[in-house]
Amino acid sequence: MARILTGVQSTGTPHLGNILGAIIPAIELSKKHSDSFLFIADLHSLTQIKNATELKQNTYSTAATWLSFGLNPKKTVFYKQSDIPITTELAWILSSYFPFQRLTLAHSFKDKSKDLKNVNAALFTYPMLMAADILLYDANYVPVGKDQMQHLEITRNVASKFNNLHGDTLIIPEAIVNEDTKLIMGTDGQKMSKSKNNMINIFLPNNKLKKQIMSIKTDSLSVESPKNPDTCNVFKLYSLIGKEEDVKQMKEKYKNGGYGYGEAKKELFELIIQSYSTQREKYNYLMDNKNEMDQILKEGSKKAKKVADQVIKRVKSKLGI
Amino acid sequence: MARILTGVQSTGTPHLGNILGAIIPAIELSKKHSDSFLFIADLHSLTQIKNATELKQNTYSTAATWLSFGLNPKKTVFYKQSDIPITTELAWILSSYFPFQRLTLAHSFKDKSKDLKNVNAALFTYPMLMAADILLYDANYVPVGKDQMQHLEITRNVASKFNNLHGDTLIIPEAIVNEDTKLIMGTDGQKMSKSKNNMINIFLPNNKLKKQIMSIKTDSLSVESPKNPDTCNVFKLYSLIGKEEDVKQMKEKYKNGGYGYGEAKKELFELIIQSYSTQREKYNYLMDNKNEMDQILKEGSKKAKKVADQVIKRVKSKLGI
Repeated sequence: MARILTGVQSTGTPHLGNILGAIIPAIELSKKHSDSFLFIADLHSLTQIKNATELKQNTYSTAATWLSFGLNPKKTVFYKQSDIPITTELAWILSSYFPFQRLTLAHSFKDKSKDLKNVNAALFTYPMLMAADILLYDANYVPVGKDQMQHLEITRNVASKFNNLHGDTLIIPEAIVNEDTKLIMGTDGQKMSKSKNNMINIFLPNNKLKKQIMSIKTDSLSVESPKNPDTCNVFKLYSLIGKEEDVKQMKEKYKNGGYGYGEAKKELFELIIQSYSTQREKYNYLMDNKNEMDQILKEGSKKAKKVADQVIKRVKSKLGI
Repeated sequence: MARILTGVQSTGTPHLGNILGAIIPAIELSKKHSDSFLFIADLHSLTQIKNATELKQNTYSTAATWLSFGLNPKKTVFYKQSDIPITTELAWILSSYFPFQRLTLAHSFKDKSKDLKNVNAALFTYPMLMAADILLYDANYVPVGKDQMQHLEITRNVASKFNNLHGDTLIIPEAIVNEDTKLIMGTDGQKMSKSKNNMINIFLPNNKLKKQIMSIKTDSLSVESPKNPDTCNVFKLYSLIGKEEDVKQMKEKYKNGGYGYGEAKKELFELIIQSYSTQREKYNYLMDNKNEMDQILKEGSKKAKKVADQVIKRVKSKLGI
């Protein structure tokens, strides 16, 4: 049975861009696979976050988002990376099979090498941890964005090196590349991202959420003027979420004129509130009942550990440790 | 109570140079400390050895050597590094606190950088594993050779960085530097080392051991000629092991002449056989009863794990994982 595995960063509350671009597609994908693993990469977050309260909050808000959008922890093994310490053990083992020089070519490191004095050693070895994340669970498929393709190639490479020396031990995973990753615009028209502070956080209380949506940048055409929906960030977001009929209607209003951006924003706000009411409710419930998430993640880590223990045993039997 | 911790490489059967230069002094030192930890660094060996049989054999022969020379596993916590997987977890955590650039300056890496294409990623991150080896056990003192001073400095540094950010969490260890490390000559007159294949392995069967000793290089003075003991490798080794009285006598024979190198070598052989008869017996017994060593190391790892679990809990509570 083919196993699919996904790792999820937890560097902040997932925003609308994460939800539309990654979370919803991943949950749809996981429904097609009867054997799926999904983990919150909190050990990885340590490379950036050094504050316990913030890290914990991020882990909870990430878990709550996935759960509220329909991740079924009875069907998908859902766990925290840090609950499986042998991940780092496998990462160490793998790193003794992978050339230092090739690791210096990894994007995750190269992208940061302009500011090398602020790069910590974990950022450098991160592809080995990612390889361990995948190989420890005998994953057959890993959904990756194009930016992660090289890291998956590193994973495949180090697994092959190990297998070449010791015989078939590790499963060589295949990438599932999401070719048409949706580019979700933020409030400033650039790609929505935490670092640009242009996010829409659908889990905010109404007044704050409304404020974020009202801050979306538009041109300065008057209410009366006909407007181009295709260049408008408000319309773009609306069309990603709204029903076909409603989107069509809004498009007409843009073209006809006499329809202001303020009104469009209000409609977008109403649409979000309406479309995600179940998710917002569930998210808030979970954030008020963190013990339920603790329990879910604990159950998940038990299942994950069972698989991981078998794989590390297999690996160690080839090593004499 | 001050805790002393020592890590032991397991890249081959310890030879006479290891025994005289490191093992005997370390065991003496451990007797002075009521709280001592000693571990076999088999995870570290993975950076060099990729063969299960060889690695296992090395671990056993290393353990048997230490035990036969008087390491008391009831007093010293004696364990295998690989039995405590959270060591690698702490190594990962620490590496997110240590700058990549400073790690490139570590001797263990720099020494190998001429042949960089053969350096694996684990050799590069090794100082982080060494830091975890030490910090995971709240060690107060770590005996190090001068060549390891820099690595201990890295350990102290990364622990301080962690403490500065999170408050006192990790104990900053102090080095005990062995200033007068004995230089033990091998059969070719150079420092005895595995890589130079000039070892004397006192655990070999008599005939093989004798052959090694008979192969010690000397000058070609005739039996009749008076000889200089101070430049002779046979005499040097004899004087490291023999009783003062016997050494004095051999010295006289060298100076008087009529005493050949062959005879001196035979006396050295007899001395080794005699001096280490108990150790040779115990070593052979243990190598024939590996399950006893398994048991000893298992007991040790249980005690080690108790301490390690507390320390990692302390660390994790500061991180939110």
